[in-house]
Amino acid sequence: MSTSVDPDELAARVGLPSAAAHDEALARQAILTKPAGSLGRLEELSVWLAAAQGTCPPTLPRRARLVVFAGDHGVAARTSAYPPAVTAQMVLNLLAGGAAANVLAAQVDVGVRVLDLAVDIDWDAAVHSVPADLTRYKVRRGSMPLDREDALTADEARAAFAAGVAVADEEVDAGADLLIAGDMGIGNTTPAAALIGLMCRKNAAEVVGRGTGIDDDVWMVKCAAVRDGMFRARERLGDPMGLLAALGGADLAAMAGFLLGAAARGVPVILDGVVVGAAALVANAMAYRARNWWLAGHRSVEPAHGFVLDRLRLEPVVDFGMRLGEGTGALLALGVLRAAAATLGEMATFDGAGVSGPVEPT
Amino acid sequence: MSTSVDPDELAARVGLPSAAAHDEALARQAILTKPAGSLGRLEELSVWLAAAQGTCPPTLPRRARLVVFAGDHGVAARTSAYPPAVTAQMVLNLLAGGAAANVLAAQVDVGVRVLDLAVDIDWDAAVHSVPADLTRYKVRRGSMPLDREDALTADEARAAFAAGVAVADEEVDAGADLLIAGDMGIGNTTPAAALIGLMCRKNAAEVVGRGTGIDDDVWMVKCAAVRDGMFRARERLGDPMGLLAALGGADLAAMAGFLLGAAARGVPVILDGVVVGAAALVANAMAYRARNWWLAGHRSVEPAHGFVLDRLRLEPVVDFGMRLGEGTGALLALGVLRAAAATLGEMATFDGAGVSGPVEPT
Repeated sequence: MSTSVDPDELAARVGLPSAAAHDEALARQAILTKPAGSLGRLEELSVWLAAAQGTCPPTLPRRARLVVFAGDHGVAARTSAYPPAVTAQMVLNLLAGGAAANVLAAQVDVGVRVLDLAVDIDWDAAVHSVPADLTRYKVRRGSMPLDREDALTADEARAAFAAGVAVADEEVDAGADLLIAGDMGIGNTTPAAALIGLMCRKNAAEVVGRGTGIDDDVWMVKCAAVRDGMFRARERLGDPMGLLAALGGADLAAMAGFLLGAAARGVPVILDGVVVGAAALVANAMAYRARNWWLAGHRSVEPAHGFVLDRLRLEPVVDFGMRLGEGTGALLALGVLRAAAATLGEMATFDGAGVSGPVEPT
Repeated sequence: MSTSVDPDELAARVGLPSAAAHDEALARQAILTKPAGSLGRLEELSVWLAAAQGTCPPTLPRRARLVVFAGDHGVAARTSAYPPAVTAQMVLNLLAGGAAANVLAAQVDVGVRVLDLAVDIDWDAAVHSVPADLTRYKVRRGSMPLDREDALTADEARAAFAAGVAVADEEVDAGADLLIAGDMGIGNTTPAAALIGLMCRKNAAEVVGRGTGIDDDVWMVKCAAVRDGMFRARERLGDPMGLLAALGGADLAAMAGFLLGAAARGVPVILDGVVVGAAALVANAMAYRARNWWLAGHRSVEPAHGFVLDRLRLEPVVDFGMRLGEGTGALLALGVLRAAAATLGEMATFDGAGVSGPVEPT
């Protein structure tokens, strides 16, 4: 297990994307053979990527990596439509390539790494053959029920956070030019809702959604759990690492470290839905510049996700009414980001193509 | 030049997508390893494609083709921000691979074909070396100003429409499994607005947008042209081919034939923005089942496009604030459609992956 990482020291390493590349990209968009502004959001995306890479035109992110952080949550048995055992089953499905994230990642040629931070299983005892990397950063089996006690000890939260930072470093060192975090964990929208509700000062009923598809009775139980968790953690609002321990669990703590680690390395990230969004909210509270390195991939149907997007001032790329997690929404945005980068880099200019500009007003 | 095509005979060949494949796809989505409905719009897209292909799971459309229909419009000198000569310049840019459509098509591995239906240029006299295919279906140099007279004669409209049908047949015969129509023509949002305004019973000011970026003065002139054109053509509202002659011009008439030809061949189409949308509106008036074969790729910022989407009851895949044409919006949707098809075809099922389903309500 990794040792501790000082969040303040990490935050100090988070810089800002390149203003020069940003301005150069804006200027270049204006001379491409199309009416000014006619590529809409694509122009903004190309400029964002150029700034994050510090170069114009940006290179197409062809070595993007998805890291799925898996964990169980003690509260899940009461707040999810699925039995907690599904987390481990879905981890095996992800390793076998059968999950939605695998299929969507293959479409955009993205490698998938799966990490068990807190899945409530002993893989050896379960006689599943799993790769050693899966459990390299495992912190514990399941996190404690957040409505009744802290999900993690302070040491566990720091270890999980440090694991996420280490994984971001590993991926960047191995050549990744864009990172995506994905989540896998039955019940993980419960900690996400609690973190978002507390940090955005919302009531439980405003942040609790249907998750994987719960009915009204379970929704009320989930609201109560989120409310109790927020109440328990209320004194730690100014302490992001404390919030990860109180409410997040090891998978969300690792995601927060991963997102902040990527920002510290100056590598662009595409965020996914509400669970990754909750981790992003905590990470950005540690380092307010971090959000500049993140693109919101999609808008989830989970109500809490909208508060994250508002708070981080991020506009999602697509809105397909999805609520699956695993990084699936981010993967769909990657193709759009690449297309945007390609227009900036590969389109002809007015001068180069001998195309006339607009008629000057008389 | 092609001979005439009887729109009624063509319309009679437009069937409906397969209800059996539709139902099979819906049922298959329900057993994939994800919460039911959690892929949102992607699930709908996969079901639509399965129905259009008549097979479940659908095959990924890997041999999609973009055909760009180019033409000049007599009204353009008064209603566009760009000089009409830019149409020919942009045709050369498209042939050289420097336009936005080329770059976005390359991103999704789509072949681009450019056809001059009514560009106001004599390529030989202009000493440009252009491929023979470019002018194979050329109907005339420019269309007449639609506010003052019919854009085309009845014979020209029929010839342009037949050309579009022929092109759809050629592409399908050559193996295309999905077709996209793109537009290129300075001033072509003027005929589009006139067709849409008349068919959707809107005032000129409701359907006239900023096109490539006109100022208020030109916008008022454009409104007047659209109003005059709609008034001139009002008696031909029930005569789609007559509307193409009165208002559309040869490029829009060919697009209408192309879209209807694709529907008659049972090949799925992704629509682009407002110009292709106007052609689609006319084509669907000829054959009301045609819209079932079409997917709305994106929502253009041109106000008239919204009326087309409403009338055809099509929900756009993406909304990036684009207004470029050339098929660019449709090309961005293709990646999403392929991703949707891949999930339906390649994800594991609950049974296959040994993943438990939801907890039964007690």
